[in-house]
Amino acid sequence: MDRKDAVQRIFKAMFALEEARQILRETVAEELDDELRGKLEEIFDGVCEILKGVRREHLKYVVDRIELRTREEEFINIDPIQAGGRLTPEARKVLIAYGDGYSICDYCLAPHRLDYIKRPPVAEFLEELAEFLNMDVVRVVRGARDGFRIVTNALLEKGDVVLVSALAHYSLCLAIEAAGGVWREVPLTDGKITGEAVASKIEEVKKETGRLPKLVAIEHFDYVFGNEHDVKGVAKVCREYGIPFLYNGAYSVGVMPVDGKDIGADFVVGSGHKSMAAPAPTGVLATTEEWASVIFKTAEGRGDVTGRGFGAKESYLLGCTVMGAPLVAMMASFPHVRERVKKWNEEVQKSNFFVSELLKIEGTEVLSELPRRHTLSAFNTERSFDVVARTHKRRGFFLHDELRRRKITGLTPGMTKELKLNVYGLTWEQVKYVAEAFKEIAERYGLSVSD
Amino acid sequence: MDRKDAVQRIFKAMFALEEARQILRETVAEELDDELRGKLEEIFDGVCEILKGVRREHLKYVVDRIELRTREEEFINIDPIQAGGRLTPEARKVLIAYGDGYSICDYCLAPHRLDYIKRPPVAEFLEELAEFLNMDVVRVVRGARDGFRIVTNALLEKGDVVLVSALAHYSLCLAIEAAGGVWREVPLTDGKITGEAVASKIEEVKKETGRLPKLVAIEHFDYVFGNEHDVKGVAKVCREYGIPFLYNGAYSVGVMPVDGKDIGADFVVGSGHKSMAAPAPTGVLATTEEWASVIFKTAEGRGDVTGRGFGAKESYLLGCTVMGAPLVAMMASFPHVRERVKKWNEEVQKSNFFVSELLKIEGTEVLSELPRRHTLSAFNTERSFDVVARTHKRRGFFLHDELRRRKITGLTPGMTKELKLNVYGLTWEQVKYVAEAFKEIAERYGLSVSD
Repeated sequence: MDRKDAVQRIFKAMFALEEARQILRETVAEELDDELRGKLEEIFDGVCEILKGVRREHLKYVVDRIELRTREEEFINIDPIQAGGRLTPEARKVLIAYGDGYSICDYCLAPHRLDYIKRPPVAEFLEELAEFLNMDVVRVVRGARDGFRIVTNALLEKGDVVLVSALAHYSLCLAIEAAGGVWREVPLTDGKITGEAVASKIEEVKKETGRLPKLVAIEHFDYVFGNEHDVKGVAKVCREYGIPFLYNGAYSVGVMPVDGKDIGADFVVGSGHKSMAAPAPTGVLATTEEWASVIFKTAEGRGDVTGRGFGAKESYLLGCTVMGAPLVAMMASFPHVRERVKKWNEEVQKSNFFVSELLKIEGTEVLSELPRRHTLSAFNTERSFDVVARTHKRRGFFLHDELRRRKITGLTPGMTKELKLNVYGLTWEQVKYVAEAFKEIAERYGLSVSD
Repeated sequence: MDRKDAVQRIFKAMFALEEARQILRETVAEELDDELRGKLEEIFDGVCEILKGVRREHLKYVVDRIELRTREEEFINIDPIQAGGRLTPEARKVLIAYGDGYSICDYCLAPHRLDYIKRPPVAEFLEELAEFLNMDVVRVVRGARDGFRIVTNALLEKGDVVLVSALAHYSLCLAIEAAGGVWREVPLTDGKITGEAVASKIEEVKKETGRLPKLVAIEHFDYVFGNEHDVKGVAKVCREYGIPFLYNGAYSVGVMPVDGKDIGADFVVGSGHKSMAAPAPTGVLATTEEWASVIFKTAEGRGDVTGRGFGAKESYLLGCTVMGAPLVAMMASFPHVRERVKKWNEEVQKSNFFVSELLKIEGTEVLSELPRRHTLSAFNTERSFDVVARTHKRRGFFLHDELRRRKITGLTPGMTKELKLNVYGLTWEQVKYVAEAFKEIAERYGLSVSD
């Protein structure tokens, strides 16, 4: 049994078991008769044969046109956005059990709101999550961008200015635009956002518009370089001006310890699929007692015909948010996530090790700050791998091919001028293996590699 | 092997296989060594033992505090909101393979937008989906409510009026409020929304505010009674007034044929977890060429420092929407969904059969229109099951207990004054079984049941 074969056996066995499950779903819920029992036993026997390697037909598609995805089983994945969102085995098990539409709503009692559900323990999870972030209140939302939207929806009037980083993710800018606001960028100082730069941008906006920005939203780590920005310094400046501060933790919440109160954040936004080992679209939005009533405002309208109102429902959230599998999966990953953030220092050590190894390759430069404080890093390889690409018959794809042959994936195929990758969650053994692979490829194509 | 045992075997085997999968994920991606192979074989042998019934320990929790969910395997589920969102086996298989965070983004190429992705075939799916709804353009969104939000966000200015049904779902009203709008209700005529009632409400709003409503949003079938509302008549009236019409198909898209153009809808909203055999939070938002540029407007802002813009990204959607497992699952269910809508008539027949059976129980009244045109129905049982509840030591819970004993679930526990249930997707055998169960329970407690 080789790796590919093992992967095939596992998936084929699981899919066969879904067929068995389906048989149960399509019958009246009385006891099994002999025919049903026979059908199930046949499938079970088949599963054993699959696992013993008797049935060897290769499975390419899960179902019609949708390929089997074996990226995490057959490869080491250094995709910059996928590392922190890989599911834990706990989350994967829960997905199997809770896939159906409204699976979380089986025991939804009055006031019929997701955050009150006790089975599965959503209410308890949210309490623990607020504690984990050291914020007063938290809700699970439909991705970090849904968190941005809720805050901008609640805070902005048409034309209001929001300060964002010059490296802000597009989804933040879109959320501001959708709320009728205007985003203005804080420039970088040596690749980083500082409190001073925010202060002078606030002054600039004040001078220009006669009003303060309504919100400042800065990421702790940006998606371009994975640089650490001075969120505490920014929060301090915001406090001085009386402007609320949104801490964008898409690349921090769930991979490293985040203490919202210590940072001085009014809003903490995190991403489930980016950093909390949860499926998309999931995110978290936490806030303080002070702001909770603003962003989690409940519905105010009353029916002019019926007189009804929806006083329990939170308007900007549109009521319940992630009422199914992705939330239960996020909950299942949480105990692991809560532990893994404590090992952030070691993740950063691995990142620094990896970067130092890559920098041994002639002509390679790191674009991210050094030493690395994050596991996502960007490199300028115009004078290393791109030199090879210029004369290689596969052009920039040679690097992708070579890595793929070594069972490494996640770089943008064809791209050799700049590399962006994330070593989060890899074991030391895996990190070393990937670093060796890059050095080997470099040497193979005549780039010198120092010791 | 009894049913419970079969369910246990299936889940335990699948969970064990997730452990095997995890072993592969934690190793360097070279060939398996003897140790690894040994570990996998041990798990595989264990799976066979589980399936043969050797390992009999009972599994109550998937993981810490999250119970195993066996509602669909051990029970017949008549929950009013869960029927159309039960996953197909195809969707469940795909969930296994695509659970990881950004699993859909492996082959995301320029312009880096979800609806352009070809592997898995998102772009193709969206084309087929538009055709299926007979609309020009469609996007997958984060639930029907996210579809409402996108439309109201794009169309409304502060204070604009939107007409909704007196039976409108709260999430529509919230989406209107979040956009700064005001919802006004169209009254029912014999339990239904008619074109005439919409016309007179439009006149009323016009008289009162001096302006026409900005949008009319009416559900094809409401969530209270499952009554069919005259959406074609409403669309006609809207066209006459030049007001865009949002067809709310949360209870129709995915279970019955919906032809947006024929209806005369400007926007068609559907729910993945309610009616398209997909996990939450998923929905669809379709529109015409005319309105596409309005609701799918791309970002306009430019960075004042960087000069960057996000011209490819759709602002109100906040860019990519469901970039992971729930969308791939929706896609996997789609071939089945496309076929099942053709059998809607038979589903309605089963519904009418079921209702007629329930009405045989003394004192039971149907609150929904007759004949039934939908599978969701509401009953007044104050003079039948509630009479029993008044003197039963378990009060209203007696009915829940009795149904549960017969492996039927989905009614609000404790409620005997009114019943709301949905027989969608049940086989004839299952429908008959459920009807018999209700009659049996009625007789057991002294309610007479006619032939």
